[in-house]
Order: sequence, then C-alpha cells, then structure tokens
Amino acid sequence: MMSDNTGTVKIERITGNKRETLEDLISREIALKIVCNGREIAALLCSPVHLDYLAVGYLFWEGFLNSRKDISGLVVDEQNATVKIDTVHNVYNTDEGSRDMPLRRIRAGNSNFKINSQLRVTAEEVFNLVNEFQSRSEIFKDTGGVQGAALCNREKILVFADDIGRHNAIDRIFGESILKDMSTEDCMVITSGRITAEMLVKIARKGIPVFISRSAPATLGISLAKEMGMTVIGFVRGQRMNIYSNGWRVISDGSPK
Amino acid sequence: MMSDNTGTVKIERITGNKRETLEDLISREIALKIVCNGREIAALLCSPVHLDYLAVGYLFWEGFLNSRKDISGLVVDEQNATVKIDTVHNVYNTDEGSRDMPLRRIRAGNSNFKINSQLRVTAEEVFNLVNEFQSRSEIFKDTGGVQGAALCNREKILVFADDIGRHNAIDRIFGESILKDMSTEDCMVITSGRITAEMLVKIARKGIPVFISRSAPATLGISLAKEMGMTVIGFVRGQRMNIYSNGWRVISDGSPK
Repeated sequence: MMSDNTGTVKIERITGNKRETLEDLISREIALKIVCNGREIAALLCSPVHLDYLAVGYLFWEGFLNSRKDISGLVVDEQNATVKIDTVHNVYNTDEGSRDMPLRRIRAGNSNFKINSQLRVTAEEVFNLVNEFQSRSEIFKDTGGVQGAALCNREKILVFADDIGRHNAIDRIFGESILKDMSTEDCMVITSGRITAEMLVKIARKGIPVFISRSAPATLGISLAKEMGMTVIGFVRGQRMNIYSNGWRVISDGSPK
Repeated sequence: MMSDNTGTVKIERITGNKRETLEDLISREIALKIVCNGREIAALLCSPVHLDYLAVGYLFWEGFLNSRKDISGLVVDEQNATVKIDTVHNVYNTDEGSRDMPLRRIRAGNSNFKINSQLRVTAEEVFNLVNEFQSRSEIFKDTGGVQGAALCNREKILVFADDIGRHNAIDRIFGESILKDMSTEDCMVITSGRITAEMLVKIARKGIPVFISRSAPATLGISLAKEMGMTVIGFVRGQRMNIYSNGWRVISDGSPK
C-alpha cells in the first residue's frame, strides 16, 4: 500500500542463487526541526506526514504546553521540515536536560503520577481493539519499518498514528488529541513495539489507565506501572494476553471478584 | 534461559476463557548514570550488565573519547547504577545539543564520513552470520524485549551484545571493542531492529563498510548510506536479502562483475 509515508527505491534482492534488481516500498523519513517561541527545541527523525501532531505531542511531553488553548501560533513549513509553535505563556523550559526528565524521575523511583481511573475493560474488548489496531498497521507489513500507536476507548480506536520512531507514534496520538481538543479520560493506549519506562511515564502524564502492547515491558516499567496504578497488558496475540500490573481492570472469565 | 539480563515477575495470563497467575521471564532494566570527568553526561535506560562497555561506547559516540588510551580512569558503581570515566584530554563537550549531532549532520545532508573499505563479502557469508546472530539472540525469544547487535568479520561474530535499547546494543559492541583494543577494520555490524539513520552515522564513524539487519532501513538512511559509501543489507531471512546500497560489496551468483 503506497502512502505519503512510503516511497520506492531500487534495490537488489538475492534469493538463494537468484539476484535481481527491483523497486521496493520503503518508509520515508525526514529530519524535523521543532521551534517553540523562536527557540529550536528538537531535531527528530520522523515520518513525513502530520508534522503538526508530532510537534504538538512532543512539546506537550517536554512541558511547553498542556492543551490546545496554550497554543497561540502554529506554522508547518514542509519545505524546510520545520514546525514553529508559539505558546500563550512562554514557558521557557530552562532545564537543559529536559529530555532526561522521565529518566531522572524513574531513577529517583518517583514518577509523580497517580492514576485514579476506575475504568475496567473486558478481555474480549482488548482482543478486538488489538485486532483493529493490527489491521490499521498496514504500512508496517509492507515496509517492516514503522511503529504504530493508538488512543482508544473500550469500543474503538479514536486516534491512530504510525511513525518510524515508536516514541514519535505516541507523541503523534497525543498531539492530535490536543489539537482536536479530545478528552483522553478513561482512554487506553496501544503500541506495536516494546513497552519502555519512558512511554509509561508519558502515558501516565495523560492519566491513561491502561497500556496495551503486542510486545513486552521490562522490570523497571512493571515496577513503575504498579506504583502509578497503571494496568499494563503485553504479548496480546490472538486470544492470549499477559497482564503485568493492576489486573483488576481486566474483566474475564476467572477474573478476581 | 535465565541470565543477569532477565528477572521473573508474577503475571496473570488470559488464554481464551482461562485466567491463571504464573511467573514469567522479563528483561531487567536499570537507569544508568554516565559521568565523564566529573560531569553527568547522560541517564540511559538499559540492561543491567557490562555497564562499562555501554558507557565507553556512549562516550565514544558523544565525542569524549576515541580509543582505549584516551581513558585514564573507569569506575563501575553497580549499586548506584553509575559509571564514572575520566579521559586523558578533558574534551569537554560544550555543545549542549550534542545528542542531536547526528541529526544536525543528517539534516545538513552531510554526514562527513566516507567509507573507503574495499571489503567484499559473499551472500552465503551474510546468511551464515545472520544465522549465528539469531542463535545468539536467545533472550529476545524469551522476553520479546531485547535488541541485539554484533560486530563481525566475514567468518564469525567477534562481539555480541543485547540491550533493551537498540542504540544501546550498538554502543555496547563499540564500547567492548574499544576497551579490548580490537580493530574494527573491514568489520561488519548486524542488528536485529530497524536500521535508523543515526545508527548508520554511528557505524560510519567507525569506518564500518557493511551494515546488516533482519529489518528495514528508511529513505533517509538509504540516501545517507549511498553518500557515505556504505553497503546496507536488510530483511535477511533464510536465504533471502535486500541490498539497499553499494551492492558491489556483496558477491553472489549473478553479481555485477
């Protein structure tokens, strides 16, 4: 499936004793510059579409804005792969190590986020959502080079994004929900890739109680999730899932009363 | 397979209508602090073993050191998840945006690296190396959460590393080769994950002419590889591979004379 996210390149393919030259579908990527209140904040390698969503999600995460009403100007300059955003309050982030912020919190054993949502979801709903997620991740099947992320409620996927970077994909779904003024209350997040501790903190900052992946978390992520009150579900494949924390949110046959 | 890189956690598994509690194997991760010449340079989420390799590889990449003889002191403090390294010349990296360095170069369309190696490798050698690589990546099969990287010559894997982060895995193989004073001339690198443009620049900095992955590169990476003179091979599975750039280094039936 050809899209703005893909391009074709000429490759050589070796199959056993055969060598041929052919056109292959490849993920496109650009180096995006994000400027906030006149200051260059970041350079990100990313997929080339919806740069506004990515930039807003990134700036949310970095603490420059919290909602749509914080944004006073937004210009996407596709030619120069630049997004310029002005904010109402010039929250000049003076912490030079801001990208390490989640790590510093994690290292301090303190994420500062507590999730109070009483959301519960059935195992069947999770299986259905992951099924829908998989069928949306078409580009991944074609190019093998893209990570997907989705914001969903119990019934359906509300926002879907893919990007060559897994953190970018999550930034994109939050950026889109901020620009569209969508509530993320009682929402869940699905990702195709590994569950990192940074991601968990990112998602907790949005108060999201359930994080679902086809892949696995690691030990630090699980401790964090327990501490923050987040339900982490991994290895969702077919009719099977692993629940790593706060299983009370998942209703199934044999679930705790 | 249990190792220092893995731990067990109690999970709930739902399979169809069955719900059970069991112990599962999970990747361990820590938040590592890297201190160079008394200054904290980075906080990285990483697997908990061989922190010296990771720190040296990271500092190589960040421009603080180039070889073993640049290192005047190295202390691994496992308790506090900290590695302290002193260098002979206090190359104080004043570029606050140093982590963006590869991106800035990529954006400027100029990697500054030219690979002159005349190394050639047969398709069969590539298949064999990837086979060996796969069998070394045991932990990935168990936990689904680890990326592998290897430094190899035409015959065999010389250095292998895995880590919860794919960039960490590459930093580790370079860190180990620096600490062991190994030449990387005419070596190749294999990675399990997606080929990012940053990785290509990292590898080019070591003058390595061939980069092999089971996954795919994206467009920017391919342009960069062509410009730098690097051979990029992706989607190596069974007896099949895609060559994205500088195919002259790969010898096979039907290869260009």
